[in-house]
Amino acid sequence: MMKTFTNIKDMQDKCKAWKAEGRRIGLVPTMGYLHAGHLSLVRKARQECDIVIISIFVNPIQFGQGEDFEEYPRDIKRDLELLEAEQADAVFAPSSRDMYPEGYSTFVEVEGSITKKLCGASRPGHFKGVTTVVSKLFLICQPDKAYFGQKDAQQVTVIEKMVRELNFPVNIVRCPIIREADGLALSSRNVNLNSEQRQQAAVLNQALKAAAREIEAGQRDVETVKQGMRKLISAQPQATIDYIEINRAEDLGEVKNLSGEKIIMALAVKFGNTRLIDNLIVEV
Amino acid sequence: MMKTFTNIKDMQDKCKAWKAEGRRIGLVPTMGYLHAGHLSLVRKARQECDIVIISIFVNPIQFGQGEDFEEYPRDIKRDLELLEAEQADAVFAPSSRDMYPEGYSTFVEVEGSITKKLCGASRPGHFKGVTTVVSKLFLICQPDKAYFGQKDAQQVTVIEKMVRELNFPVNIVRCPIIREADGLALSSRNVNLNSEQRQQAAVLNQALKAAAREIEAGQRDVETVKQGMRKLISAQPQATIDYIEINRAEDLGEVKNLSGEKIIMALAVKFGNTRLIDNLIVEV
Repeated sequence: MMKTFTNIKDMQDKCKAWKAEGRRIGLVPTMGYLHAGHLSLVRKARQECDIVIISIFVNPIQFGQGEDFEEYPRDIKRDLELLEAEQADAVFAPSSRDMYPEGYSTFVEVEGSITKKLCGASRPGHFKGVTTVVSKLFLICQPDKAYFGQKDAQQVTVIEKMVRELNFPVNIVRCPIIREADGLALSSRNVNLNSEQRQQAAVLNQALKAAAREIEAGQRDVETVKQGMRKLISAQPQATIDYIEINRAEDLGEVKNLSGEKIIMALAVKFGNTRLIDNLIVEV
Repeated sequence: MMKTFTNIKDMQDKCKAWKAEGRRIGLVPTMGYLHAGHLSLVRKARQECDIVIISIFVNPIQFGQGEDFEEYPRDIKRDLELLEAEQADAVFAPSSRDMYPEGYSTFVEVEGSITKKLCGASRPGHFKGVTTVVSKLFLICQPDKAYFGQKDAQQVTVIEKMVRELNFPVNIVRCPIIREADGLALSSRNVNLNSEQRQQAAVLNQALKAAAREIEAGQRDVETVKQGMRKLISAQPQATIDYIEINRAEDLGEVKNLSGEKIIMALAVKFGNTRLIDNLIVEV
């Protein structure tokens, strides 16, 4: 029987008890409005761990001013049904007030270029909000393993660095992007697209795949590859490009020319108010 | 048999094993060069926990430019003998290179006035260094309880706030200041005083006690009480006052007038290059 915890102390006490019994805990941190991408993480956790906890928390401090905190889709009832069907053990759904009580001022931050580029450039403070909430979730739920989707590639890379540097006793498991039939990466935000935007959004994955083919065919110039993607995406009238970047996959470091490295092509594009991200890793 | 760990992973694995056996771990974080104050923490941990770990690490990131990181006294051999005698289970003495490898950039920070006043004002970045290293030590050693001396009153208050806000599953135990016969609070730094400075340093505790008597006698004006301490300390030719402050004991908040609260009188004074701190809590 799946149990829902809204109180931090109750969840933490339960996790302590599970740990004391030697159970291996898997945590899937989410902002809810679950889709097949989230569920693939839950299934992976179910395979690998004794206890599977899903956190559902739309984390206010990772949204900037003017971002879509209010419009972020929520449907806890549906989420609970989906998770029950996946045989999750527990859902942790705390309130903002409990997570960030009056006077709250403690933050975990990965400093440096890794959080300043890509999404960090357009969303200042975003990753500080992410690393703070993930630290809290890790400390409350004490997972042995935590599952994150490769769709938020920079997020996972930042969290891996945080875990390594702060010595969190947690294994980070990176899971592949799940896509719609037309290639659009699953995202809770997709529901906010109108039908025209939804159709045009398929270009993101198409552009990434086209770029991968270009590289496979011998193209080694980063700017040329980025230009190709830019051209394809700009052709969609509803698309406004935030960024298109190519970085070293391992640490998001600079890539001068494409040779002998695993690289990540990552992009963020707005359709109306809805900002979508996608990425593709290529071994050159 | 006490065991010394210098490798982070070895220490963390050992702590995981202890936790899996249901042992309660007590951690005493120190910068070494142990004195009776540290040993009082170790004894308290020995009484309350199954496993007692002492960390010895002169944390470079909590020292500012021009501060005494280099001159900070070190004597690991003597420390280990003292801890062996106290029947400690483990000493964790990592290297700086392992704690902060090349490219390290993850920090835990308690923001706001609590880390900006008192020692935070004269030592910018100090508490960020403290909360970061303490977070790492907690994550490596997974203590149920961690022991800190009241001599570093602001440090304990900041750490308590961090633990509460990040949801660390750790109980912070605050232990009383241990003093020399003439009232000087024990500190590893005392060894850096010359004999004249050492003699004059007794004024710190004398000034705090005189202030407490003044309050007991009915004085309610904060500035008058601070002036009294300032006068006593300035009379010592080697003393240079950094700060003398009176705050609410609980959270170091502002105190307008002395009435019906627990207050903390705290001071920092330099004798030559050696900066000493002391404090006294008074129930008004």
